[in-house]
Amino acid sequence: MTNTAELPENPTELLICTKCRRGRDDPGDDRWPGQVLFDAMRRLPVPHAIRVTPVECLQNCDHGCTIALRGGARWTYVFANCDELNDPEMILDGALRYHATADGLIPWRERPEHFKRNCVARLPPLEN
Amino acid sequence: MTNTAELPENPTELLICTKCRRGRDDPGDDRWPGQVLFDAMRRLPVPHAIRVTPVECLQNCDHGCTIALRGGARWTYVFANCDELNDPEMILDGALRYHATADGLIPWRERPEHFKRNCVARLPPLEN
Repeated sequence: MTNTAELPENPTELLICTKCRRGRDDPGDDRWPGQVLFDAMRRLPVPHAIRVTPVECLQNCDHGCTIALRGGARWTYVFANCDELNDPEMILDGALRYHATADGLIPWRERPEHFKRNCVARLPPLEN
Repeated sequence: MTNTAELPENPTELLICTKCRRGRDDPGDDRWPGQVLFDAMRRLPVPHAIRVTPVECLQNCDHGCTIALRGGARWTYVFANCDELNDPEMILDGALRYHATADGLIPWRERPEHFKRNCVARLPPLEN
């Protein structure tokens, strides 16, 4: 990580859609896959500088589970088709790599394969 | 429009991906469809409070043309499958309705049909 990424004014937020059904008609263990994913992320050692935020619907309902990364001067990225059981560690790894950048652009060769193939959209940082 | 939406601290930004190819292999009139869309939006009477911003790739490449609306305390919305020739007025209408809200949530019955069916993702406003 760079020193830039450690500055308080450039925190990272990991948004997780807790309503994602991932094609299911019923929530299985009483939690929708999106909620299962959020709960799993909360059990991982996420650094304090990365805030994990539950969101009730990121409106990418046909391709959940859906997450987003944003923060500070970085581009915002939305990623689809995350698996609530298999992908939490990959998401944490990607979030750490994202947080380590000043602009949100993880170098392509360092980007998790899932991020390469499942980017739904990205948005430029807000101009100050 | 509400008074809230007119406050300078709650401006709206309309982002337009100028690289969208919308399935084309060549740009036609030397401009990609995304650029044609951006140029068309610039010719419309967009109010000063709505900034039209060109972006080189919103990374929704398979479903362009792609636009996004964000600003102030509003949710951010990304919309896909816009037609550069037929949709500029619809986009302006939607942007005006979005700008008139404090939170970005256009009432469903007032929402352009295209917005209803082509939302790629939405993101909550940043917490202050």
